[in-house]
Amino acid sequence: MNILIIRNSANPAAFDASMLLCAYLDSQGISHRETETMPLSMESVQDVTTELDIPSFDMVVSLGGDGTMLHSARLVGKHRVPILGINFGHLGFLVNSSEDGVVPIVAAALAGDVVREERANLHIDLINYDDEVIASRFALNELAVTRGELGRVIDFDIRISGDYVMAMRGDGLVVSTATGSTGYALSAGGPLVSPLFKGLIVVPLAPHTLLSRTILTDSSDIVEIDLERNSETREASLFVDGELIVPDERIKRVLVRKSNNPTVVLRYKSKGFYSAISNTFFKVGY
Amino acid sequence: MNILIIRNSANPAAFDASMLLCAYLDSQGISHRETETMPLSMESVQDVTTELDIPSFDMVVSLGGDGTMLHSARLVGKHRVPILGINFGHLGFLVNSSEDGVVPIVAAALAGDVVREERANLHIDLINYDDEVIASRFALNELAVTRGELGRVIDFDIRISGDYVMAMRGDGLVVSTATGSTGYALSAGGPLVSPLFKGLIVVPLAPHTLLSRTILTDSSDIVEIDLERNSETREASLFVDGELIVPDERIKRVLVRKSNNPTVVLRYKSKGFYSAISNTFFKVGY
Amino acid sequence: MNILIIRNSANPAAFDASMLLCAYLDSQGISHRETETMPLSMESVQDVTTELDIPSFDMVVSLGGDGTMLHSARLVGKHRVPILGINFGHLGFLVNSSEDGVVPIVAAALAGDVVREERANLHIDLINYDDEVIASRFALNELAVTRGELGRVIDFDIRISGDYVMAMRGDGLVVSTATGSTGYALSAGGPLVSPLFKGLIVVPLAPHTLLSRTILTDSSDIVEIDLERNSETREASLFVDGELIVPDERIKRVLVRKSNNPTVVLRYKSKGFYSAISNTFFKVGY
Amino acid sequence: MNILIIRNSANPAAFDASMLLCAYLDSQGISHRETETMPLSMESVQDVTTELDIPSFDMVVSLGGDGTMLHSARLVGKHRVPILGINFGHLGFLVNSSEDGVVPIVAAALAGDVVREERANLHIDLINYDDEVIASRFALNELAVTRGELGRVIDFDIRISGDYVMAMRGDGLVVSTATGSTGYALSAGGPLVSPLFKGLIVVPLAPHTLLSRTILTDSSDIVEIDLERNSETREASLFVDGELIVPDERIKRVLVRKSNNPTVVLRYKSKGFYSAISNTFFKVGY
Repeated sequence: MNILIIRNSANPAAFDASMLLCAYLDSQGISHRETETMPLSMESVQDVTTELDIPSFDMVVSLGGDGTMLHSARLVGKHRVPILGINFGHLGFLVNSSEDGVVPIVAAALAGDVVREERANLHIDLINYDDEVIASRFALNELAVTRGELGRVIDFDIRISGDYVMAMRGDGLVVSTATGSTGYALSAGGPLVSPLFKGLIVVPLAPHTLLSRTILTDSSDIVEIDLERNSETREASLFVDGELIVPDERIKRVLVRKSNNPTVVLRYKSKGFYSAISNTFFKVGY
Repeated sequence: MNILIIRNSANPAAFDASMLLCAYLDSQGISHRETETMPLSMESVQDVTTELDIPSFDMVVSLGGDGTMLHSARLVGKHRVPILGINFGHLGFLVNSSEDGVVPIVAAALAGDVVREERANLHIDLINYDDEVIASRFALNELAVTRGELGRVIDFDIRISGDYVMAMRGDGLVVSTATGSTGYALSAGGPLVSPLFKGLIVVPLAPHTLLSRTILTDSSDIVEIDLERNSETREASLFVDGELIVPDERIKRVLVRKSNNPTVVLRYKSKGFYSAISNTFFKVGY
Repeated sequence: MNILIIRNSANPAAFDASMLLCAYLDSQGISHRETETMPLSMESVQDVTTELDIPSFDMVVSLGGDGTMLHSARLVGKHRVPILGINFGHLGFLVNSSEDGVVPIVAAALAGDVVREERANLHIDLINYDDEVIASRFALNELAVTRGELGRVIDFDIRISGDYVMAMRGDGLVVSTATGSTGYALSAGGPLVSPLFKGLIVVPLAPHTLLSRTILTDSSDIVEIDLERNSETREASLFVDGELIVPDERIKRVLVRKSNNPTVVLRYKSKGFYSAISNTFFKVGY
Repeated sequence: MNILIIRNSANPAAFDASMLLCAYLDSQGISHRETETMPLSMESVQDVTTELDIPSFDMVVSLGGDGTMLHSARLVGKHRVPILGINFGHLGFLVNSSEDGVVPIVAAALAGDVVREERANLHIDLINYDDEVIASRFALNELAVTRGELGRVIDFDIRISGDYVMAMRGDGLVVSTATGSTGYALSAGGPLVSPLFKGLIVVPLAPHTLLSRTILTDSSDIVEIDLERNSETREASLFVDGELIVPDERIKRVLVRKSNNPTVVLRYKSKGFYSAISNTFFKVGY
């Protein structure tokens, strides 16, 4: 048994919890390693690379909020190592409450007393003007294509699995997983989607047309955002799970599909998605 | 080989096409029967019953528009007999264009030169105040629970697979299939959903709250609409695929789930869903 | 000084308050009369008529909730007699809290220690197939044209001050005042509008098109809803301030305009519109 | 009679039209001056300043598209000189069609054969952390407060005329005039508003909450956007009529109100607002 602890280095409570957890794992004779979420600027240009041998771990414990969880998912990438998120930040949909204490929660996970959920994530290809894939990125929540640095409205065409769908002008587009449906996609007006959904959720951002609607694709579909109609002074920006990506070259097209390897999330005393959205979104009316 | 022809009795072009088709089938030595869509009033109280032995047919040819197709799907019900819809009405998403002629299209279907699509449909249980299921209904598009005859706003609770989701006050609720996502669910603000999606699309109708959003469930989920908070003078109305249902008793709860048997639809020269929504919804901007 | 007390006859607290208020007015030598809101069925067919000489009153005190207030406004109609609403129901935007007691609130109003607000209301003309106005109605909140008794989708054309705006198919249309912007218009997706706005707010109900948006008109504009494209079996229903109107003849067109005489509402310890919407709609986020 | 011609310098057709117009005005003995819209980078930091004596002109002729018109309105500012926009770009709501030729259109304007419309515009104050107004800006369409350069979500509080309305987290906020209701405010989901409306239209951009709705204020209201909750690494960006503003200091609050001096627009063969939105937005359904 080998455990990787990923903690938000800027969060004192997460740091304390990691110390406690290390002591516990030592007492149980369970091997472990610790790592920290890197500052955003260090990982924003390209995908997370790590000297860690991810497949050697049996479980990842992520100590922080949803942001730390997104980082952990990115680090694990395609390796299917299950991730147990424990919340020491702004409570989100991916992390478990830390109320019962980090040690009992990890002990429960080690005893198999947690629910294992496979979450679809995204494989994103960035394509330059020579039609070459210059970078590929992982996302658990969403890709967002938005107005660029200068804030000019952007034009783009959308194709799904080769079929032309629409030309759009506006603030941009969000392509989200079911997991991301409670994030940026929600802000943009998208629906709340059961975590078992494996397709893509395509939500326009402030489209300058009435002819626009959220589209949900099948799990095998590829969403293509063609940015060719934008001049150099009107470059779009790209955000992967909320983080700005700055590619080395101009991007002509972006391809988004479900990756082949889901992110495995462990749920402790899970109440399920419908109770969670009920508590978070619908609790107090008027 | 045995073919059932269902035609919209009020549509002269559909009638002519059925005559032509019968002559063709006779010439090929293929047995067939004809039936007509019944006037709405005759089938609105309870589900379509028929003396026809549906499983004895190898294919249904539906001559009319989307309404005739919904009727055909209801008649076939759980029997998985494939339906070939040919359009002689307002072109919709379920029927094939009649441009190439009814005979070539049916010949292509007999030769297997069509795409077979399995569409999820709904099993709807109506439950009275003794908590008994008093009727079950089939829908290919959607169930709509709306303000009743007197037009009073309705109150209801929504549960999904037993979990409480929200209390709502408003015009009502639409529970739709992917197939229905281009129908009433779209009007209510719901997303366009790939036909392969097997879950339910839950869309509020004019909710008197800001705390409301479309929800997409998993294929195994059951949506429960609890109407108990409405007094007798504030009864909700129920619509199945657009047709008013008038149960014999007051309805306390409605349960909606995906049925076990999909509706099998045959697509001739199919362009696919994304091209169809592109042409229908996004074609002319400004 | 002559005061008219209108109370919700079905509300015991409102009844008690009216007794108390009568005793107080008697003690002050102020003449008064009492009347009750009629059951809905009695006034639904045509506008409120009354044997009361409305212009002889200096103030109306409305004891009940927003529904009683709407009834009071209808009774006052064009006579500009100020209305002091005191809440004994579901607190709404039109009525004052009864927390300080009915006597101190009325005393404050008599002393002029209240804010006087002029609220635009609607003059609605119902026009038959002979192009004659067969009835005119008053509304403080809104006119709603909706699917009729049988629940069939309706078709209609919208013109504003003679200019054709759009053809629509759907659940219907709401034409609201600023006062009504927190009511049905809100449910249909309309904006929150300052009470000083004198124009009309036109909000589609579940339109079966993407080409639809809320429109706000000028105070002098006339909104025309042309129902001519609906057959007799597809009649629309009409609701004025939430109450079903059943005209004697089929209605071909409905004209809605701001009436010439505002409804005068008295606000006690008024916090203003923006604080009210903040407390009611935006208070609890997540 | 003295006329100022403002042309889009990058538009050959606008340039040719200006030559033609100068020749015509010379032939009529009407004095005139020409100026060009400046490149965006030159005017983006602070408001348009000009050596031109704007009050000395009797009319401005704006040759270009809506962008040139916005520039012209900014140049005229508070001076109420009427502006005749003639379209040589992407046809918008503010400019007249050039179909009849620039000379006949200007001749008609000189003869008084045009409709004069007073459009509300915005006075925007930018306030630093010492609570000083460091700059004021003019807008005919809208102010937009958005995610900043790094694309991080922003937090802000909204107050209207001193009353707290809501705390928001999201992409930002648009505060628009009626004129701007067909622009960015529309993309963000706002209503179409008659040009005679003098209040402010407040539309959230992708709010990360369900508790959000467009608000329309009275003409005397002041909308305050308080950005104080954003750290230095999470600065908002400000756009005035689509152009990025880069203030010298960090901005703590932005105040938006209707200015005292409307922009006077001349309409040639005007069809009116409702016909215009009908043609532009609602013409082709499905």
